[in-house]
Amino acid sequence: MRKILVIGAGRSASSLIQYLLDKSETEKLHITIGDLSEELAKKKVNNHKNARAIAFDIFNETQRHEEINNANVVISMLPAHLHIQVAKDCITFGKSMVTASYISKEMQELDIQAKEKGVVLMNEIGLDPGIDHMSAMKVIDEIRDKGGKIILFESFCGGLVAPESDTNLWNYKFTWNPRNVVLAGQGGAAKFIQEGTYKYIPYNKLFRRTEFLEVEGYGRFEAYANRDSLKYQNVYGLANALTVYRGTIRRVGFSRAWDILVQLGMTDDSYVMEDSENMSYRDFTNSFLPYHPTDTVEIKLRHIQKIDQDDVIWDKLVELNLFNAHKKVGLKNATPAQILEKILSECWQLQPEDKDMIVMYHKIGYELNHDKRQIDATMVCIGDDQTYTAMAKTVGLPVAIAALKILNNEIKTPGVQLPISKEVYEPILKELEEFGITFKEVNEPYLGYNLLNVKK
Amino acid sequence: MRKILVIGAGRSASSLIQYLLDKSETEKLHITIGDLSEELAKKKVNNHKNARAIAFDIFNETQRHEEINNANVVISMLPAHLHIQVAKDCITFGKSMVTASYISKEMQELDIQAKEKGVVLMNEIGLDPGIDHMSAMKVIDEIRDKGGKIILFESFCGGLVAPESDTNLWNYKFTWNPRNVVLAGQGGAAKFIQEGTYKYIPYNKLFRRTEFLEVEGYGRFEAYANRDSLKYQNVYGLANALTVYRGTIRRVGFSRAWDILVQLGMTDDSYVMEDSENMSYRDFTNSFLPYHPTDTVEIKLRHIQKIDQDDVIWDKLVELNLFNAHKKVGLKNATPAQILEKILSECWQLQPEDKDMIVMYHKIGYELNHDKRQIDATMVCIGDDQTYTAMAKTVGLPVAIAALKILNNEIKTPGVQLPISKEVYEPILKELEEFGITFKEVNEPYLGYNLLNVKK
Repeated sequence: MRKILVIGAGRSASSLIQYLLDKSETEKLHITIGDLSEELAKKKVNNHKNARAIAFDIFNETQRHEEINNANVVISMLPAHLHIQVAKDCITFGKSMVTASYISKEMQELDIQAKEKGVVLMNEIGLDPGIDHMSAMKVIDEIRDKGGKIILFESFCGGLVAPESDTNLWNYKFTWNPRNVVLAGQGGAAKFIQEGTYKYIPYNKLFRRTEFLEVEGYGRFEAYANRDSLKYQNVYGLANALTVYRGTIRRVGFSRAWDILVQLGMTDDSYVMEDSENMSYRDFTNSFLPYHPTDTVEIKLRHIQKIDQDDVIWDKLVELNLFNAHKKVGLKNATPAQILEKILSECWQLQPEDKDMIVMYHKIGYELNHDKRQIDATMVCIGDDQTYTAMAKTVGLPVAIAALKILNNEIKTPGVQLPISKEVYEPILKELEEFGITFKEVNEPYLGYNLLNVKK
Repeated sequence: MRKILVIGAGRSASSLIQYLLDKSETEKLHITIGDLSEELAKKKVNNHKNARAIAFDIFNETQRHEEINNANVVISMLPAHLHIQVAKDCITFGKSMVTASYISKEMQELDIQAKEKGVVLMNEIGLDPGIDHMSAMKVIDEIRDKGGKIILFESFCGGLVAPESDTNLWNYKFTWNPRNVVLAGQGGAAKFIQEGTYKYIPYNKLFRRTEFLEVEGYGRFEAYANRDSLKYQNVYGLANALTVYRGTIRRVGFSRAWDILVQLGMTDDSYVMEDSENMSYRDFTNSFLPYHPTDTVEIKLRHIQKIDQDDVIWDKLVELNLFNAHKKVGLKNATPAQILEKILSECWQLQPEDKDMIVMYHKIGYELNHDKRQIDATMVCIGDDQTYTAMAKTVGLPVAIAALKILNNEIKTPGVQLPISKEVYEPILKELEEFGITFKEVNEPYLGYNLLNVKK
């Protein structure tokens, strides 16, 4: 039996673990699932004969060394900042490791040691980062192999609610870490390059500078810019592309309504509000509005945000209970962002029968034989249920597949890696298709940003 | 001869030094002016027989010890973070010190030592902080002495250009550190309390939540909220006041136009712009606007900021040269804020004949014998010229007067102090009147925030 150690049995590990259990007979695998909560690990193992569940504390050095040394390959589904200790031990004991997280500076520094030991430290192989890298590089490499030159790269991804479970006015539910949704876009201007011009969008404009996307069979979406588009110029070798832009997908109208919360100051995580515990939701809203002895919170908000009487954006705010004087915040020393997260969680929680949905969209423009074309590649994945969510499948399956392929020596280039080489993405994308994670590619004339083809 | 050491001979020290030189005969003073630039110190001394100019390096411990030990009282006009070393030496050698800066945490920690040595470390005794403390506490103490209760405290201050030198559409010129003007309001929401309700204004709303102020003989001004109003509740003992609000004064219309620059992202100091050196002012503006192959920067900005054809705000932007394609930024690796500061400095520089103006306004509401009243206290100070500016007078004179009164043992309470006790503010405010720094007080019925007296 070959031994795989999976550290972390949380939500995103469900599909990953199921994949490994399903393969354990044919591939002769024994899987150890370690989690701080032994109960959670046991639940995931579900008495499978080729697996064992253990209580695992990443800060217990003896246990960590023993389990890592005992495995043939290690999967870390821990929070991103905890991978580094696992990675160091993997190098010590000569084991390969897989994570779905961005390569940190500390991780990158292990590259030489990993190569010396012949160990693969594969990162960024979940959904985003992960499937985005693989599917984009597949298209990019195909164009380059034909002698084409990439002139435009746009890539969008979003975790949403499936159409059949889409029951609120925001067309959105939390399918991932709510805190990240509340803080999205903070910490610096979004930077990208459009037709050769560097563009910067400050946070207060981010949700009003969206663009629309059409996905066949799923209708219209919108996307706002991610902070970090420029770094993909290097990763994908796009130094000469005139446009490099990455964004986050939402249903149409989400961003314009979200911007109201941003403008009011409700997403601020930098200070604690006075007596937050005893505040009502209405008090919370009122604290961002000017004082008036008689005007209502409603009219003050409508006025300051210039919301017309018949604008559906208003109903979205009402749906969140922002004007409810009876609901109490009940959080001590909370920041606006923490309070908002609580308020949103009540409205945007996935219900037991709800399904989630992942949408990914790449637009890749290129020049080949003096002809400008573009490939639009789209992927939609719908969750099976609340355990095997689209998020769990798209994050976990590439990790699991990569781990098995490393074990089988199909992926073998040592060092700190991300899945941008054909050796990695080709077999993994192929296998993902068996799980319904497929990209639909459309090749069409180049559109770029000059749709009317006007002269500058 | 009693010896006064003045460290720092910059712009704000002119009136301070002149005051001491003028008093040197009658008060038997010998003044040492130390500055990194001996030339600057010499210029300020102007061959006065009771003074000497020296090159002074705050990091030269030997010199620092010698000069401080040799003085009877020390004035530090250094940048705020450099006071602490002077303060420590003053304690060592048993000398009192005066600064115009806010009391830092490190400074506050010297309180016990200063008291043990019988040394006065007087801080926050310039304009703002300084004259604001003194003039507000005078009114507050007078009300309290009569048995009145403070129910509202609002205080505003602004460094502006004098009406006779007010020659641009913004009605503003830089009379103080331009960088602080560009970054004003950043770093956290403005917090205050209004009629018993805590209010928070995020940066992106700060310049649209102004209120108007009338100053007799000077017309209408506006004010935006400062970040730190709440801390004055403790300093002034206003825990029971229903309203505590501090703001910065500008001429009417400034803030609404400034907000355009904020909304575009031009005041962001958190990242460096690509190739900033070779950017034109027009490129700079365009980098915050969406790409379009033919639409002009002008129409894109008008559209995104919803600026009507006949809105004077547009002319303010044009006046700044924001659409000029020929002027180059010429700053390497500059942030948006640094570039904006350069652009503004060209338009907002004081000309040799220009005079500056300081405006201060306190509104203090109180309840006395079941009657609600308020006192509005206003001060306007106009500079004499570019040396004895209103800023130099209002910052420097209180410092100089305090230093002399410490020397004369009229101010003697030891420890880390700020000028909120009668012992300090009464004689200083009285002497400031001789220099035309006078407050006009109007006592009127309480207005508060319920001007129409409507029932809640």
